[in-house]
Amino acid sequence: MPTLQFQLQHTDSATKARAGRITTDHGTIETPIFMPVGTVGSVKSLTIAQLNADVKAQIILGNTYHLYLRPGTEVLEAAGGLHRFNGWQGPILTDSGGYQVFSLSGSRKITEEGVVFQSHIDGSKHLFTPESVMDIQRSIGADIVMAFDECPPYPSDYAYAKKSMELTHRWLERCKQRFAQTPDRYGYTQNLFPIVQGGTHKDLRIASSQYIAEAGLTGCAIGGLSVGEPEDMLYEFTGLCCEHLPVQKPRYLMGVGTPWNMLECIALGIDMFDCVMPTRNGRNAMLFTSEGVINIDNKKWEKDFSPIDAGIGCETSAYYSKAYLRHLMKAGEITGLTIASIQNLAFYLWLMKEARQHILQGDFASWKQAILPQIIRRC
Amino acid sequence: MPTLQFQLQHTDSATKARAGRITTDHGTIETPIFMPVGTVGSVKSLTIAQLNADVKAQIILGNTYHLYLRPGTEVLEAAGGLHRFNGWQGPILTDSGGYQVFSLSGSRKITEEGVVFQSHIDGSKHLFTPESVMDIQRSIGADIVMAFDECPPYPSDYAYAKKSMELTHRWLERCKQRFAQTPDRYGYTQNLFPIVQGGTHKDLRIASSQYIAEAGLTGCAIGGLSVGEPEDMLYEFTGLCCEHLPVQKPRYLMGVGTPWNMLECIALGIDMFDCVMPTRNGRNAMLFTSEGVINIDNKKWEKDFSPIDAGIGCETSAYYSKAYLRHLMKAGEITGLTIASIQNLAFYLWLMKEARQHILQGDFASWKQAILPQIIRRC
Repeated sequence: MPTLQFQLQHTDSATKARAGRITTDHGTIETPIFMPVGTVGSVKSLTIAQLNADVKAQIILGNTYHLYLRPGTEVLEAAGGLHRFNGWQGPILTDSGGYQVFSLSGSRKITEEGVVFQSHIDGSKHLFTPESVMDIQRSIGADIVMAFDECPPYPSDYAYAKKSMELTHRWLERCKQRFAQTPDRYGYTQNLFPIVQGGTHKDLRIASSQYIAEAGLTGCAIGGLSVGEPEDMLYEFTGLCCEHLPVQKPRYLMGVGTPWNMLECIALGIDMFDCVMPTRNGRNAMLFTSEGVINIDNKKWEKDFSPIDAGIGCETSAYYSKAYLRHLMKAGEITGLTIASIQNLAFYLWLMKEARQHILQGDFASWKQAILPQIIRRC
Repeated sequence: MPTLQFQLQHTDSATKARAGRITTDHGTIETPIFMPVGTVGSVKSLTIAQLNADVKAQIILGNTYHLYLRPGTEVLEAAGGLHRFNGWQGPILTDSGGYQVFSLSGSRKITEEGVVFQSHIDGSKHLFTPESVMDIQRSIGADIVMAFDECPPYPSDYAYAKKSMELTHRWLERCKQRFAQTPDRYGYTQNLFPIVQGGTHKDLRIASSQYIAEAGLTGCAIGGLSVGEPEDMLYEFTGLCCEHLPVQKPRYLMGVGTPWNMLECIALGIDMFDCVMPTRNGRNAMLFTSEGVINIDNKKWEKDFSPIDAGIGCETSAYYSKAYLRHLMKAGEITGLTIASIQNLAFYLWLMKEARQHILQGDFASWKQAILPQIIRRC
């Protein structure tokens, strides 16, 4: 089967926004796209039917760290891969586990070989290496497999960021080699994406982007941003990376972000996003809607029987009222968590679809200017 | 609009099982029927879309005690009743709040006037009287409103059970009076059901059944069973009550039960059931399936990729594997709670539909004998 294809359909004249189409053996993704995070295989609180009908997801993400610990590769292999296990029939991207090892694990030790870390579940010790992480992602059966990287914290001084970036580059070579030596697992093509690092140091980011551009893989990712740096720095470094990444390959900005972050980063040339924010914040009563940001716990919604959001083409969001969702959240009902997660994810996907449409019809910049204050405001 | 109608379609010749049809202003219910419990307005962890498409619910239950405390009648009235608030378009039955007051409230005091109780949420004091409970259920907008009763614990001695039953009967007169004096709230007919009490004392149960039979209302309920008494006592007293209740009115056995309890009670002449068991046990990893009872936490399901239950006509239960549901439950994923609840409720509704079909085609008794060991067994 062919490797992942990227068709660049249109580039905005006023910004660097792009509309494209990524083709995988599990179907086509229209970019720009947001990828809901399916931590242990499921997007939290949602069924696959809801992901399809309500959220209209095109691709979901799985976390290698979580899936490796639970259910483990033995179960995933027995199932015939994650698609068969969780029932998601579209494309799946898995992260490399690197980020989770640094953010979740109780203690970890980085060496040239890899990272020894402790499970957050039972404290058991494990080793991730570039090779093992390729093997695990092969077993999971992701359509897009991420290289193993070190994600340095913000701020990191120049010396550390450089050392870390060089390690990430050496690890990339080992990932590429292992990936090339191992076959696709379940009869469809798996694709490896490399990751730009370099902290918040311009020459390092440029060097890393050039290194990744030359890796000759089917897409490129930007890591190590949205880790606590100011927003203007996120935009500055995203823009810088995009300038040095190949035009003809999809660009994935990892872990971003808020709806307004995504719109600005689309304008800088990003095609793919993921973030736990829509589901996590939804479970904490924070709703993103086409009319602004809502704290649904607020008393002001107690008797507001208007739809949660009638403007995003999501049946569930148009069906239930703000007052009812508030009641469910106040009462601690699981159904409330589900509806809030649907709203936020459906809004994210709607926003991407709108952005794409406006890129294609040539008015992305003016649309972005008009919609930004509308979706940022607190209702 | 007309009051609730009950059409008795067929009575089994070998047992006392009945197939019927209840017509309300919110639609028709085919009996025997199980009513999923929507505690605070939502059936726990499910959306209305899932209740319709997966569970195929025909009527749901709301808890007066919970809805009174949260969101409260002011919000429900402003919404235009519970149907508009929660989006459920079929019939709704509300209990009287009596049972919750006795089982959930920290402290409560029963007098002739009613029950003073403390909220389990904030400890605040409240008074339920037969009159106030009619008013609350009017405000909720239930299609079927339950009389206010005292549910004595098991065991209760004769003197207490008699005193309690007489209080319930006096309260019924006050309920009837208040109900007759107050109009339907939202443009459709609301119907009052009285409740048989009498503990586990035969003459009291007979007397109470006769009293309730003479109340001249559109249906009859049996309360105070499935509160800890042995199973054969549940059947004995259910059968006894049915013998003394009118043939032409639907009979609702409150709070029952397990799938096998329901089949036996259908054979005794019961038409309607409710119970929190399918959702509560589902959330605790206990699944009722057409092939038996499953503890989905069990290691034996780790690599069992067969459908959760392909035999009950539920898409979700046929879509996901036992291994995947086990993984979700082990990982504490909300999606697992939803899928388990769907399975159990869909199984309950399927079982009622099957029972009904076999009553109509005349082989209920032999079908029941054949299916009982199948659904009781532990897989």
